[in-house]
Amino acid sequence: MANLDDLPKAIRLIRAGADEAPVPAGFPVLVVIDQTALPEELKYLYITDWREVIDAIKRLSIRGAPAIGIAGACGLALRAAEYCYARLNPDRQDEFDFDRVFMIDEASSDPELYMMSIEYAAQMIVVARPTAVNLKWAVDNAMDIVREEIASGQSFEVVAERLFEFCEQLIVDDENTNRRIGENGAGLLPDDATVLTHCNAGILATAGFGTALGVIYEASASSGIKRVYSDETRPLNQGARLTVWELSEADIPVTLICDDMAAYVMQNEQVDAVIVGADRIALNGDCANKIGTLGVAILADHFDIPFYVAAPISTIDPHMGSGGEIPIEMRSEDEVLDIELDGVEVLNPAFDVTPAKLITSIITEKGVFSPEDIHTLFGK
Amino acid sequence: MANLDDLPKAIRLIRAGADEAPVPAGFPVLVVIDQTALPEELKYLYITDWREVIDAIKRLSIRGAPAIGIAGACGLALRAAEYCYARLNPDRQDEFDFDRVFMIDEASSDPELYMMSIEYAAQMIVVARPTAVNLKWAVDNAMDIVREEIASGQSFEVVAERLFEFCEQLIVDDENTNRRIGENGAGLLPDDATVLTHCNAGILATAGFGTALGVIYEASASSGIKRVYSDETRPLNQGARLTVWELSEADIPVTLICDDMAAYVMQNEQVDAVIVGADRIALNGDCANKIGTLGVAILADHFDIPFYVAAPISTIDPHMGSGGEIPIEMRSEDEVLDIELDGVEVLNPAFDVTPAKLITSIITEKGVFSPEDIHTLFGK
Repeated sequence: MANLDDLPKAIRLIRAGADEAPVPAGFPVLVVIDQTALPEELKYLYITDWREVIDAIKRLSIRGAPAIGIAGACGLALRAAEYCYARLNPDRQDEFDFDRVFMIDEASSDPELYMMSIEYAAQMIVVARPTAVNLKWAVDNAMDIVREEIASGQSFEVVAERLFEFCEQLIVDDENTNRRIGENGAGLLPDDATVLTHCNAGILATAGFGTALGVIYEASASSGIKRVYSDETRPLNQGARLTVWELSEADIPVTLICDDMAAYVMQNEQVDAVIVGADRIALNGDCANKIGTLGVAILADHFDIPFYVAAPISTIDPHMGSGGEIPIEMRSEDEVLDIELDGVEVLNPAFDVTPAKLITSIITEKGVFSPEDIHTLFGK
Repeated sequence: MANLDDLPKAIRLIRAGADEAPVPAGFPVLVVIDQTALPEELKYLYITDWREVIDAIKRLSIRGAPAIGIAGACGLALRAAEYCYARLNPDRQDEFDFDRVFMIDEASSDPELYMMSIEYAAQMIVVARPTAVNLKWAVDNAMDIVREEIASGQSFEVVAERLFEFCEQLIVDDENTNRRIGENGAGLLPDDATVLTHCNAGILATAGFGTALGVIYEASASSGIKRVYSDETRPLNQGARLTVWELSEADIPVTLICDDMAAYVMQNEQVDAVIVGADRIALNGDCANKIGTLGVAILADHFDIPFYVAAPISTIDPHMGSGGEIPIEMRSEDEVLDIELDGVEVLNPAFDVTPAKLITSIITEKGVFSPEDIHTLFGK
């Protein structure tokens, strides 16, 4: 396989250089791979406006539970920097296209107003996509930083700096977490394993290495991967566009199939395991993940194939007792059918919930758990 | 619901009028809905060349097990008419674009050569698509007519006429068969039933009324249909393009879903039954049908939803002991992925085999059978 360190990073947070208009030097810049352009084009977005973070998440330019969590937190760093800049340069607000958030006076020195403006951005960001809990987790943790620093009397600029550093650390931590998930999961696979996956829980869905695909990358380097079957993953084709692209870049043999071919593959080819990611895990071990995951889990159960969920502990929602409580995002009909026919409706749930009983193990950075035991991580 | 008699017919066999160049008046014309153009456009193909029948079947302009069987037989009628015309009008062969089949002298009066030329067309037609047995069934039966009429000393023209009449009868019989399948199946559904179907086994797949959708049409008129969930049916989207179109035309409420949403729908919505068609049924009750059917059957089994196969008896292959013997057509990678990526393969089986144990009943024109009893129709 290729050196995974050579692969592009889906999400980075950098500082603008001296001549990177429209933002001033030193302003935070969120650099992400535009996932809507793959596999035709590897294109980067340079995001300096927190509102654009929301748009990019909504239109799936940034996607994957860990990645949208990090991007959401970075949105707060952008908002804080914007506020600081706007306060000191009221005359240059037009130049930099920093439109004001209503009800907040950005010329004010009141730290309460500063916090509220960031809080407002946080609330807007969290509702961009409702199912993945990582978004709320990362944004909540970022807001905790803001509250603590403001409570301890830090200047606006220091608060913004702390937020930036927090996001930088999130990115480092996420890749490290995924590498541990990979190590913990790889041991579950036989030598030269054939694995089936759904959607994309890889480098592109995280700050690095991936979760489900991280297990595959680690196994590829240790015990070997014979082949990965990648479900197309309709309607937005994350498997056909993203998973096959990144496995191709990593020199791992991959076969693309349509979602309705997974049963055929399990019936007629040797499949050693199914590995998928997760967007939210309830305390009883039920897992919400990309639509179609439930079906694959049922098929794996039918064919006696182990079904693994690989996800960081931040994906577990200690406030959800069971999967039935997890909100499922419904997306536009246009993603499925682009012409109108009388009497024809379209259902487009973006996620489904796989019950714990269909899951062999949940692979986390702290070890491999039976879904029934996942609650022990929270002492519940 | 709409009057089903008003719906367009997917397949008809007519005689050319006086001025319908390039063929002479009275020449057979196979008129089919071009299913690759739906739902954007309702377009008819007027086919007078048996070679074009093969092309239309291969590119899925004509599709559905019963429909390709009828079209295949019509191809022989076209070939016989072509031979007769070419023999009597050697000077006008260029005008009518009747290129010769190699090794056959179309000026000959040897009935053996005439039969061989039709037999050659039959062999070419039968291999156009390997999985649906109806194609072989209809073409074999048509060839029996040719052999009988030639053996009894009939003129070339009478043989061609008998073939034409046989095909006309096939069309009438197919619709009548489907109406009986509809009547036999409708009684299996509760009042105001919600049904899920995969691919298209409707008016478009037959000479009329449809098999799986025939059951739905009949139930709609008798006990009521609340809603049909139609799987998109990747990679060629027969559900999204054809089933939603014809149910929309018939005023039956339909919800389009992606194939990977079927499990979500069964988990979260009330689904009373799954009904699909079949391309070939083995004597042990195993059913080959459009890729994805196996997966839907496993999901239905998991959620305790009855799973019905609706098909004419001509779909049962008395030479196949079990589904494992049924040839599965593999189609082009381009249907799934249109760009090339290093190391990325595509698997594109057009059909899968659902084992008898996952099938609640097989609905035929002669009644409803347990799959284990289907062999009794053949005294085996």
